[in-house]
Amino acid sequence: MIEMQKRHKCHGGSIGYYCHDSHETKTPMRFSLFEPPESQKTGLYVIFLSGLTCTEENFTAKANAYQKASALGLCILAADTSPRGETIPDVEAYDLGQGAGFYLDAVQKPWAENFRMESYLMQELLPLCEKNFDLNPEGKSITGHSMGGHGALTLYLKYPGRFRSCSAFAPITAPSQVPWGQKAFGAYLGDAPEEWQQHDATELVKKAKSTSENAPILIDQGLEDDFLAEQLKPEFFAKACEESGQALTLRYHEGYDHSYYFIQTFINDHLEWHYRALSRS
Amino acid sequence: MIEMQKRHKCHGGSIGYYCHDSHETKTPMRFSLFEPPESQKTGLYVIFLSGLTCTEENFTAKANAYQKASALGLCILAADTSPRGETIPDVEAYDLGQGAGFYLDAVQKPWAENFRMESYLMQELLPLCEKNFDLNPEGKSITGHSMGGHGALTLYLKYPGRFRSCSAFAPITAPSQVPWGQKAFGAYLGDAPEEWQQHDATELVKKAKSTSENAPILIDQGLEDDFLAEQLKPEFFAKACEESGQALTLRYHEGYDHSYYFIQTFINDHLEWHYRALSRS
Repeated sequence: MIEMQKRHKCHGGSIGYYCHDSHETKTPMRFSLFEPPESQKTGLYVIFLSGLTCTEENFTAKANAYQKASALGLCILAADTSPRGETIPDVEAYDLGQGAGFYLDAVQKPWAENFRMESYLMQELLPLCEKNFDLNPEGKSITGHSMGGHGALTLYLKYPGRFRSCSAFAPITAPSQVPWGQKAFGAYLGDAPEEWQQHDATELVKKAKSTSENAPILIDQGLEDDFLAEQLKPEFFAKACEESGQALTLRYHEGYDHSYYFIQTFINDHLEWHYRALSRS
Repeated sequence: MIEMQKRHKCHGGSIGYYCHDSHETKTPMRFSLFEPPESQKTGLYVIFLSGLTCTEENFTAKANAYQKASALGLCILAADTSPRGETIPDVEAYDLGQGAGFYLDAVQKPWAENFRMESYLMQELLPLCEKNFDLNPEGKSITGHSMGGHGALTLYLKYPGRFRSCSAFAPITAPSQVPWGQKAFGAYLGDAPEEWQQHDATELVKKAKSTSENAPILIDQGLEDDFLAEQLKPEFFAKACEESGQALTLRYHEGYDHSYYFIQTFINDHLEWHYRALSRS
């Protein structure tokens, strides 16, 4: 059961905020879905995964994506970043617990019960939306920002053929090697190096068998991003892509930081990138 | 002294958040300024005034204005909606006091000391910004949303020749005749019908002497706007414009509501509207 909470007409289409009870996270979960005007609808869609501290609303309100999505006839689905609620485990830190689900299934206590964002997205939210809205299961791509960029890259690599293309804004690309990732992986996955590798984009791309069949990945990264040197490490991912044969377009942008002002500047390029992949027959 | 609080590169230009101590409101006041890329700069600028409850950030983050502003070489200045602070008068209601300054100078206690938004904008903020940034004092236009649409219309009509053009999104056009306006005008101006008329766009346009010299005004209004029938009354303003010879383009849009999703859909039209007026020699 999907409950619509609010819906606004926007660029001829509509942006809706929705809530449903998730059996994976055992909580209510929210998402937003932009649908282009009826006359433009293609059924093709892009999933956007947000970064630390965000909800489904940050992208929806701030990314300026819907003018282009309307023109291209794309739907855009934006998910929340974790389960939430007073009874759900959390810590005070912004980079662990609620708002910081890292798009994986936790196996450690107290997280394992609810923090199942990978299964939530892949087994529940996407099928649910494909059933309830005009979304083509064969026509989806994935993108995201920061922690959500990590989510987009890892889900793309873990589920070959499921997404037609992948891109990311300032993604965490090698979580096993940076403080944000080490903290989250340690808490959610425990002291288990092999388990960590299953959720690390740089490790995944090294082992991927289907890289030659994958669409090229697009990554945009601002050079004034405060997190670039310590947390994001796109150069690690680029090296792994080169070694494994995964095509990658990595663009560095002078002056841009980690904010949604950076995302809104390049979102149209990403939507066009995905549209090209999605509309190829 | 203007203090920059943060600044982000955006669409090749930059969006800055600033703070300064206002002698009109006797408080720190914040604003945002988008500046296009150096190569695009014209010195021309548009002032945006927000609606009830907003700060300078709502427009800045949600209106999607900067791609077009960058392309046209326009700066955009977004102001706050009132003085703020623990020692500043306020009430619990969202439509009076902090966040609800109505862009006029209050004369009643306890508001008169700080709630001087008209003088703040006209005598302080605009001259300050024109002195400190590359803004052409002869090249500015004004727009706004809801209460800020009222602000844009009234300041345009009160200060002939000061703004090259005026537009509004879902403005309060006849505050003396609607609950929001009656409440605010009663509190800020007292029981003084003649005083009210000096701050009511519909009354001002009836008395304006220079309407034949004014640029046409553009108003966009959504037909699913919950406040349309009770608070906004664009038909009152349209009738007054017709009688006084003020050219007006009033567009009604099926399905659109009062939100920033409505504003983001039509902001490019407004920027192009102002750019045409501003770039006329």
